[in-house]
Amino acid sequence: MRDKPLILITNDDGVHAEGIKELTACLRELGDLAVFAPDGPRSGMSSAITSLIPVTCTLLKEEPGLRIYSCTGTPVDCVKLAVNDVLDRKPDLVVSGINHGGNMAICVHYSGTMGAAIEGCISGIPSIGISLTDYTEGAGFGECCRFGRKLARRLLKEGLPKGTYLNLNVPNIPHVKEMKVCRQAAGRFINEYMRSENALGDPVYWLTGSFDEVKPIHPENDTLALDNGYASLVPCRIDVTDYDFMQKLHSMIQDE
Amino acid sequence: MRDKPLILITNDDGVHAEGIKELTACLRELGDLAVFAPDGPRSGMSSAITSLIPVTCTLLKEEPGLRIYSCTGTPVDCVKLAVNDVLDRKPDLVVSGINHGGNMAICVHYSGTMGAAIEGCISGIPSIGISLTDYTEGAGFGECCRFGRKLARRLLKEGLPKGTYLNLNVPNIPHVKEMKVCRQAAGRFINEYMRSENALGDPVYWLTGSFDEVKPIHPENDTLALDNGYASLVPCRIDVTDYDFMQKLHSMIQDE
Repeated sequence: MRDKPLILITNDDGVHAEGIKELTACLRELGDLAVFAPDGPRSGMSSAITSLIPVTCTLLKEEPGLRIYSCTGTPVDCVKLAVNDVLDRKPDLVVSGINHGGNMAICVHYSGTMGAAIEGCISGIPSIGISLTDYTEGAGFGECCRFGRKLARRLLKEGLPKGTYLNLNVPNIPHVKEMKVCRQAAGRFINEYMRSENALGDPVYWLTGSFDEVKPIHPENDTLALDNGYASLVPCRIDVTDYDFMQKLHSMIQDE
Repeated sequence: MRDKPLILITNDDGVHAEGIKELTACLRELGDLAVFAPDGPRSGMSSAITSLIPVTCTLLKEEPGLRIYSCTGTPVDCVKLAVNDVLDRKPDLVVSGINHGGNMAICVHYSGTMGAAIEGCISGIPSIGISLTDYTEGAGFGECCRFGRKLARRLLKEGLPKGTYLNLNVPNIPHVKEMKVCRQAAGRFINEYMRSENALGDPVYWLTGSFDEVKPIHPENDTLALDNGYASLVPCRIDVTDYDFMQKLHSMIQDE
């Protein structure tokens, strides 16, 4: 068994979500699988960690080549706890997803799916986050699985540079053209709240909004590739230092 | 009043934390202040957003040039709600902190303080996160305030490039040398869990750990500057695309 690669699978929609089940099924042939995922939805958890209360995990299922754990923490907690304490060896690959909903453009910052991929990368393991740009019930994960399996196979052979992880988004159309290497689209969400009232008549705010992309749209943007029927693949880095601005910033703080 | 700049102040330790009070006091002279912060501790919340339940806010205090709001959401929710709905004009600057505890190196990914700064930046506002590398009771925020005020004044005049935000960390020593422009130190946390038991005798895991820095340590690392008695200032970017790896990745996925 130890000759087979070990793949850690997690997500932010919870261990019972359809997307992680499909992902698990489609990666089964590539190695031993450890599914270690939140016990319920943790969408939008980014790289949040749990420190003020303890986390726990439960082994839900064990069969040859597959263990499934449920964890009370965030997606990042799942990766940390699995890698640090629960798994008996270091995973060769972390795959997070398949997320119900896209994580293109700046969503990499908010996404729990991507938080888990970032954590896998920080732990020194080649890591991918996979998302389907459709969160409706009954969305089809087939094309996601096709690209996800291809990428996973590749990464198990070749790895990734230290500090680099991948963000794969797949449009929900019957025949996705191919994977296209892209850059993260720039922009922001606007009109982000729906104002409503609670039962006492006090104002409450529900998060909503639409993405307002910076114009002109760059031809390598992930959003554009998705619109054109491709799966977008953005290589991302853990080091967020803005090296280009360091010298200028040095001058700015010296002048005063 | 509208001639004065508007500074949005938030944090992840909550609106009643000492660090945000000190920050508010020290920025008072620079403009009108809107403090809009979580109603309690939200450490380690990264860029988490609240979408499954609504968020609410409460005006705690209003006096000329200062409004203080408490919010049920995360640090990012605070920035979003303040900028989208509650404030009557767009802030000229977002300052997040002063965090009780350092956010150097890869902590930029986990920190709620930095999550708020990232959100300010995404919203198109010059944004800084400020942290004191000491979370003990009675830690002194004086040097943080000195550097924070200097930076805030500078940014109100000159702004920042689009998509760039600042991560300022200050060591808790009486006389910090100066601000040094740094890069984010590479590394990971190790030995991250203390295993314990709950009242039923079941295992529970408490997050802990120590930072294991990649060796050799780069002379521009933020961790090194702090160790040497400087305040570290890392310019960071919203766009996490690994541009250097795009071409290679393109080849990797074509070959198969």
